[in-house]
Amino acid sequence: MLNLEVQPLKKEFIQIAWERLNNLTKPPGSLGRLEEIAAKLVAIYENPMPEIKKKAVLVFASDHGVTEEGVSAYPKEVTAQMVFNFLRGGAGINVLARHAGADVVVVDVGVDYDFGKIDGLVSKKVVKGAGNIAKGMAMTRSDAIKCIEIGIELVKEYHQKGYNLFATGEMGIGNTTPSSAVVSVLTNSPVEEVTGKGTGIDEETFKRKVEVIKRAIKINKPDASDPFDVLSKIGGPEIGAIAGVVLCCAHLRLPVIVDGFISTAGALIAYCINPSVKDYIFASHNSVERGHKKALDFIGLKPLVDLNLRLGEGTGAAVAMTVIEAGLKIYREMATFDEAGVSKSDK
Amino acid sequence: MLNLEVQPLKKEFIQIAWERLNNLTKPPGSLGRLEEIAAKLVAIYENPMPEIKKKAVLVFASDHGVTEEGVSAYPKEVTAQMVFNFLRGGAGINVLARHAGADVVVVDVGVDYDFGKIDGLVSKKVVKGAGNIAKGMAMTRSDAIKCIEIGIELVKEYHQKGYNLFATGEMGIGNTTPSSAVVSVLTNSPVEEVTGKGTGIDEETFKRKVEVIKRAIKINKPDASDPFDVLSKIGGPEIGAIAGVVLCCAHLRLPVIVDGFISTAGALIAYCINPSVKDYIFASHNSVERGHKKALDFIGLKPLVDLNLRLGEGTGAAVAMTVIEAGLKIYREMATFDEAGVSKSDK
Repeated sequence: MLNLEVQPLKKEFIQIAWERLNNLTKPPGSLGRLEEIAAKLVAIYENPMPEIKKKAVLVFASDHGVTEEGVSAYPKEVTAQMVFNFLRGGAGINVLARHAGADVVVVDVGVDYDFGKIDGLVSKKVVKGAGNIAKGMAMTRSDAIKCIEIGIELVKEYHQKGYNLFATGEMGIGNTTPSSAVVSVLTNSPVEEVTGKGTGIDEETFKRKVEVIKRAIKINKPDASDPFDVLSKIGGPEIGAIAGVVLCCAHLRLPVIVDGFISTAGALIAYCINPSVKDYIFASHNSVERGHKKALDFIGLKPLVDLNLRLGEGTGAAVAMTVIEAGLKIYREMATFDEAGVSKSDK
Repeated sequence: MLNLEVQPLKKEFIQIAWERLNNLTKPPGSLGRLEEIAAKLVAIYENPMPEIKKKAVLVFASDHGVTEEGVSAYPKEVTAQMVFNFLRGGAGINVLARHAGADVVVVDVGVDYDFGKIDGLVSKKVVKGAGNIAKGMAMTRSDAIKCIEIGIELVKEYHQKGYNLFATGEMGIGNTTPSSAVVSVLTNSPVEEVTGKGTGIDEETFKRKVEVIKRAIKINKPDASDPFDVLSKIGGPEIGAIAGVVLCCAHLRLPVIVDGFISTAGALIAYCINPSVKDYIFASHNSVERGHKKALDFIGLKPLVDLNLRLGEGTGAAVAMTVIEAGLKIYREMATFDEAGVSKSDK
């Protein structure tokens, strides 16, 4: 199941897109990245006039045993509390997804709380919180693979329901810690260079966080050439599920908008499994978390917006979604020079 | 009429806004600039729970005699042709304004074409094209003031119709040339540092453009301490109208989203008339035109998005409008910690 075929984008569709873009009533290239977005969408969908139908932000929630080490500004109970907030529509991602016209799909992959049967929550719990990576593995290899498969299955399911644009999001107190660990190992960067202040920790907690991540890597000895090993030893359930979303979107030729640092750690896992996924990813925003840029550079992606966001949940991806739709609308709705009777450049 | 009173924003409203923002279910400040947008809107509207009602992009069209000097990649006929394109809804600004849920108001302030009576066009022609600034004044001082008054009147009229969020836009072949001249004089910057390649000119045309702007400044001797003098001698009708829009929005306590380089030249005129307007401006995007950053820095504004746009028309402002609305929705719609039963930070 994890062996999903991913095709690189075809040049002929890129060409088709630019032919139209250069005939629209504007100086060539003057709508900058909006035009690049349109060309990428044409090539992803392999459709000279693509259409965005239903949009979903997939938000994966999980707990992390590493919070025992005092690496976060918030108590771990907040993960479950925020899941309830998502289901009631009061969180940042609910507001921004509504603004973008997208549906929020809330998925429990590893929250350490028994939700029972509850309306609107997709229950896919693999573990009751990841293990404390400062002391051992986050989860077994088979659980890590299960998490990836959950992401894959959800994209397949929602694609069948008519969704053709996906964004990733997550909630998990403590999850910048495994994300930094994953990015450090997979990009071969010093821990200090990929660790940030998460939801807002002080200098002392930050130092402890760096130390905890170093210990996690030292104890678990993840194999940097094996992304499944990295995910299971020092990652987390939501990071795995997001990797699955990215893999499956690329496989199905669907664009996937990747949110901030944690989501990009998931995308990085997917990229290390299959580098061809890169063509299908839109990097949404430039997170305040310093490891984010490192991970994006490693994959070779440039974010669309930079609004000093560091909330996660998919909020940056939802903002970027409105920009991505703007790019497609330009392509679909603008008049050509001929249609409008406008003279082209003298040059 | 030009002596419009503008009040600086009141600290008490900024405080009211941040009190609510810090109580929403997210780490304080984690929605970055979206939160800053919300706080600014609360203070502009002087309303603890402001609401954006109808939105308009005011697009001012004009011709420029300086095109005789061969400073643009497009023939001047394109200005009128694009006005027809705007009225038919096929231009970039039409598409992006629809995306943002805003209406486009197309205003002829100085096009060198006789439109006659034509549906949807606001006819406020002050001149049939500005004069060639390389040889003399763009327009008389009284015409320059008329242009500013047109901007003021339109905001008043549309505000009475229920619009409370405005964006600026323009169309005018050749209008980056007077914009560079205005920005050079008002920010006291060398012409080379504030001149760009407009719609896409080659190196030779660029050199000529710089030389033409220098000549325009030398011949006209605009008084840098008198923004009306600068506007009339080396500016343009649409630049004046945009200055009027900015002045009137600030006067009426309405936010105004300023598009790229030409719009910012207009905002700069307004700022030099009354620096208090700054509080009411949202700088939308970072234009490819290099003089844009200079003008924004001079006023003290930081753009919201950076998408390599250089089309004008109000396109960047329309994209920023969706971000600004996202900021307000966060403020209005997110649950507080109490409402959601979510624990606050340990710190």
